[in-house]
Amino acid sequence: MIAVDWGTSSARAYRLAPDGGVLERCEGAGGILRVPDGGFPAALTAMVGDWLAAGETRVLLSGMVGSRQGWQEAPYLACPAGLEDLAGAVVPVPFTGASVRLVPGLSAEDPAGTPEVMRGEEVQVFGALAGGTADALLCLPGSHAKWVRVEHGRIAGFTTHMTGEAFAALGGHTILGRMMTGPAQVGPAFEAGVARAADEGGLLHHLFGTRALGLFGRLAPEDAASYLSGLLIGHEVASAMTQPALVHLVGSGPLMALYGRAIALRGGEAVVGDPDAAARGLALIAERTEWM
Amino acid sequence: MIAVDWGTSSARAYRLAPDGGVLERCEGAGGILRVPDGGFPAALTAMVGDWLAAGETRVLLSGMVGSRQGWQEAPYLACPAGLEDLAGAVVPVPFTGASVRLVPGLSAEDPAGTPEVMRGEEVQVFGALAGGTADALLCLPGSHAKWVRVEHGRIAGFTTHMTGEAFAALGGHTILGRMMTGPAQVGPAFEAGVARAADEGGLLHHLFGTRALGLFGRLAPEDAASYLSGLLIGHEVASAMTQPALVHLVGSGPLMALYGRAIALRGGEAVVGDPDAAARGLALIAERTEWM
Repeated sequence: MIAVDWGTSSARAYRLAPDGGVLERCEGAGGILRVPDGGFPAALTAMVGDWLAAGETRVLLSGMVGSRQGWQEAPYLACPAGLEDLAGAVVPVPFTGASVRLVPGLSAEDPAGTPEVMRGEEVQVFGALAGGTADALLCLPGSHAKWVRVEHGRIAGFTTHMTGEAFAALGGHTILGRMMTGPAQVGPAFEAGVARAADEGGLLHHLFGTRALGLFGRLAPEDAASYLSGLLIGHEVASAMTQPALVHLVGSGPLMALYGRAIALRGGEAVVGDPDAAARGLALIAERTEWM
Repeated sequence: MIAVDWGTSSARAYRLAPDGGVLERCEGAGGILRVPDGGFPAALTAMVGDWLAAGETRVLLSGMVGSRQGWQEAPYLACPAGLEDLAGAVVPVPFTGASVRLVPGLSAEDPAGTPEVMRGEEVQVFGALAGGTADALLCLPGSHAKWVRVEHGRIAGFTTHMTGEAFAALGGHTILGRMMTGPAQVGPAFEAGVARAADEGGLLHHLFGTRALGLFGRLAPEDAASYLSGLLIGHEVASAMTQPALVHLVGSGPLMALYGRAIALRGGEAVVGDPDAAARGLALIAERTEWM
């Protein structure tokens, strides 16, 4: 079968063996924002046409491709939701030459009743836990980082933190950006930012402290981005991991190391999972899907 | 005498009577960023030359004009500091035709040892409390909002919150901006944002909630800026006013109403002071200054 994790800004396609192993992969087409109106069938063919020609007949899609801005809207499924729930709610889309299905996203409410949504991360969560843990806490770093609680094998709830996008906006469009010269990386400045997040005063006060430390020569320009990153990720981890816990980190790239360090500094333990979690999760859903 | 509150982006000059009353005022010259190298004597003359020609001989300046980027650097004075301390630390600057003095800014450390600085606000604080309260909590809203504790008539300490600049960066350069159509104003959406700040989850999570509420049609585009403003000011007030208190609000413009409402919603009481607090504060310092 073919699995595609098709998000806003990227698309990753996998050709999977019957046991779910990855046979081939392709980073195709670009995200849904690059697809013109009515262009999804052609975009899918451009990405996986060779595999279809080679005999594949089933295609399972996850991510923003199932949003209002995507191929077709697959309504959110409310939490709690497990693999069987997702498989039972896949939405068929018309396509000539294969059975194509969309996995719905999930909705939830935080303890105060504010709505939450995800599209694509639910598949990565089940892929990351593949066949394993019935209860787990997972973190998916990113522009909109997600913290997901799995209970009895189903996603019980989750919270989203606008950490990555806030870092870009504050670093790029405030006085803090003018004092930054390097990238954000693990090290003493990042750790000082994480520690600072535990002080009283709140995030908005801590942001100004970044500026004041620079003014007094106590934070070098090449360390400022790491400090700001530590401050923001530290605040996120403090809110989302309210007591030391084992956290499954899902994703890839430099954020994994930053989140792993911040979680450890707050007494938790981070384990980094399979970077192909999306493919694995789609395979698990495909197994449970009625294809006819 | 002549008093000038000369900041980064604006300059306000006042001609004062011997009792400190405002005789004339002028919004001159623009902030220090508009003054070319070596151009401060000419900029001052352009602003208050008529008053000097009419016989004024003393000029007291406060604000960023005393910073490294200003006319001449007046080193920060450490807190606690009162009117006498400020008057004793004014810095003379060379000028033909009048005695010109700079009021220094103040430095402090927050409880965790992170540095804090202000330039200009210290003068407004003493002006706002003119002759009155020996102990007070003041708030000066703005890009970098200040909360100032006055004890026994001296500024004991203060904290800065990057609330205004964060609002501009988040509203202008994240997904939140795309859902905003109106200005931030007092009303139910602002109040909902302030209330939301008291929920668990942290500011970075609450920011995403703004987006999610919009997605579910529970926050209208014309209300989104007010909600975001309430969220940020609510977080600031929660951190800075740790128990219900009387807060002296110093400043002018739409922020006064927003802060007043947020303070009231958290059980405090806000009083709005004299919009000419800077002139009054400079008069009080001038009285205590050795001019020869």
